[in-house]
Amino acid sequence: MLDISEIYKAAEVLKPVVRHTTIIESPKINPKGLIYLKTENLQLTGSFKLRGAYYKISQLSPEEKKRGVIACSAGNHAQGVALGATHNGIKSLICLPAGAPISKVEATKALGADVCLVPGVYDDAYDKAIELRDKHGYTFVHPFDDPLVIAGQGTIGLEILEDMPDLDAVVIPIGGGGLISGVAFAIKTLRPDVKIYGVQAKGAASMVASIHEGKRLHLSNVSTIADGIAVKEPGINTFEMCKQYVDEVVTVTEDEIAAAILALIEQQKLVAEGAGAVAVAAAMFDKIPVEGKKVVCIVSGGNIDVNILNRVINRGLTKSGRNCSLTIMLYDKPGQLSGVCNVIAQLGGNIISVNHERTNASTHITGCTIRVTLETRNQEHIDTIIQGLTDAGYEILF
Amino acid sequence: MLDISEIYKAAEVLKPVVRHTTIIESPKINPKGLIYLKTENLQLTGSFKLRGAYYKISQLSPEEKKRGVIACSAGNHAQGVALGATHNGIKSLICLPAGAPISKVEATKALGADVCLVPGVYDDAYDKAIELRDKHGYTFVHPFDDPLVIAGQGTIGLEILEDMPDLDAVVIPIGGGGLISGVAFAIKTLRPDVKIYGVQAKGAASMVASIHEGKRLHLSNVSTIADGIAVKEPGINTFEMCKQYVDEVVTVTEDEIAAAILALIEQQKLVAEGAGAVAVAAAMFDKIPVEGKKVVCIVSGGNIDVNILNRVINRGLTKSGRNCSLTIMLYDKPGQLSGVCNVIAQLGGNIISVNHERTNASTHITGCTIRVTLETRNQEHIDTIIQGLTDAGYEILF
Repeated sequence: MLDISEIYKAAEVLKPVVRHTTIIESPKINPKGLIYLKTENLQLTGSFKLRGAYYKISQLSPEEKKRGVIACSAGNHAQGVALGATHNGIKSLICLPAGAPISKVEATKALGADVCLVPGVYDDAYDKAIELRDKHGYTFVHPFDDPLVIAGQGTIGLEILEDMPDLDAVVIPIGGGGLISGVAFAIKTLRPDVKIYGVQAKGAASMVASIHEGKRLHLSNVSTIADGIAVKEPGINTFEMCKQYVDEVVTVTEDEIAAAILALIEQQKLVAEGAGAVAVAAAMFDKIPVEGKKVVCIVSGGNIDVNILNRVINRGLTKSGRNCSLTIMLYDKPGQLSGVCNVIAQLGGNIISVNHERTNASTHITGCTIRVTLETRNQEHIDTIIQGLTDAGYEILF
Repeated sequence: MLDISEIYKAAEVLKPVVRHTTIIESPKINPKGLIYLKTENLQLTGSFKLRGAYYKISQLSPEEKKRGVIACSAGNHAQGVALGATHNGIKSLICLPAGAPISKVEATKALGADVCLVPGVYDDAYDKAIELRDKHGYTFVHPFDDPLVIAGQGTIGLEILEDMPDLDAVVIPIGGGGLISGVAFAIKTLRPDVKIYGVQAKGAASMVASIHEGKRLHLSNVSTIADGIAVKEPGINTFEMCKQYVDEVVTVTEDEIAAAILALIEQQKLVAEGAGAVAVAAAMFDKIPVEGKKVVCIVSGGNIDVNILNRVINRGLTKSGRNCSLTIMLYDKPGQLSGVCNVIAQLGGNIISVNHERTNASTHITGCTIRVTLETRNQEHIDTIIQGLTDAGYEILF
């Protein structure tokens, strides 16, 4: 299907364009092993997708280049195709579902693509792209199920072997399977002793299910914060390559993905999108064997919507005791709120918001409740504040 | 004061320990110039401080090493000294103000230091450190005003020249002045044609004021989210070196720092602390000449408290129209809230929180107000939602 010479050729073509991204040691992710990060979130366009799209486009015939390319994506692939086409001096048209985030539409346009907003969901945009391809003779650039796209992604495997020849394993996110197919093929061909692990979000585990069943399955719906790998069905090529070259596929939960995103921010100063964090989540939560091993996790992209990042951080802060909300029962008379605030201030809690409610059916007729949100240091600090409020005679409801 | 051979020696000593951090092109920061980032936030311990502390410690006599080192810091310098000492097999004691964030205390301990929590503020911790030094014969590792510390920081200058020989300018944060003194000395010695710009937070501009006055000034108080550079007085050595080797010093505001932190997250997938983002802020907001120039901004560190990061993101989201809060006047009867929610949902707004208040003195006796917080796409989207609510008969108060 693929020959290793195709990967080397892709590496040559991509050399002047893509970044050879740095590998960073990340000891705190899981102290049992030696965890390293291949930082494709620091790639141009914020994800590895540029590699495959660029290489595919570079290999078109002059006639095909003249007609231009089309793709369907609301995310990283769109930006990869747009930049790849613009660099090669050819036209690109990207079909997106009309509800796609404005920021992604603008980023795609800024890279030189024309954008076609299609009413409906991804499948509608895909149908439209195929219709336009047939009508105008554009070349369709598939996001993963194309040997040249796979070869482009495989260049990451060469870079990893070059920079870390003594590695034991690579952990790779799986959506449609383009990234893992290329990297696994390159590494298993050159270094069959290196283990390859694939990771999917539990809510979108089409490749995992397909491999377990021994045939390509189509999931009726997928749901995960890792939107970049929310793919309903593996590709034909990628399914075969995963069966052949991948040692094991595992899944991670939404909370594990969120924890990995937060760990990357706090420990490594890196922003990863959900899909970009699943390999780290797998290493962090012992979904794969890391003990005493040198393990490279591919952080595949960093294009996370800032509103979602905000929610992930909030959730992580709450989970690690660095903020909390307390609902407190008060008698409805002057001075009660200030009493609560004093206790909290003396114990070093920082109040962010107060919600005061008098008309709650569940409280006494002379009572009221307040809900206070605080910045705290850790769970112990929260416990101290709760104890302090209780000692001062306030009743914490929850 | 310093000889360039000292910087080369420091580079040799540091080679097996510190990361030669990558320089990343960052075209969107300011499209008028060619902006690059020297990513010292990706350094071990999350900041450049390791370099100076490690080199200083490595040069102690066997007798001094035996007695151990002491430092005073609540931040990056503490972690640099701790790791530097532990790697060199010697004891370190770090004095911190008792109110320092638990996370920083834990991080310092985890790197092998003993920690002494001193009641009071930084100055109290500093006095305690000096007292303990005099009592026990520890060597005090100054955070910036020491030629060997400055030489260690200067190795960043060598790395920048090695990786980007064709640069025009370097932009560098200034707190006490250790980083800029080392880098400016190295670069001006080897390449006097390269411009050196220093940046301080407006709320802590002690070096800027001192240079303008021609003598070292002591500010009575400093206040900025860039806590890593909140220094009241330049060092004796660093002040002289800045006068000699720095072309210009400028300041940036708190909002500019916050905008730079958000831009680094969104565009570059990098987490910077306030101090780490001031050089980027200066390039972004045209505080220095960038037009047509290759400009390297040093992102000096990434150790930002996640609660603060959260606030910076929230502020940035509000400023760019990606969330908003609306206070709406309602008549107090069933169905009003659901009506508002329907309008917002139809227009694609995503409600995060609702605060319903009936007893507001400023409203009609039959009225009430609700405060709705929404995720939105941009200012235009907010305007559409406001128009939609107004058309449906709701009154937006603010």
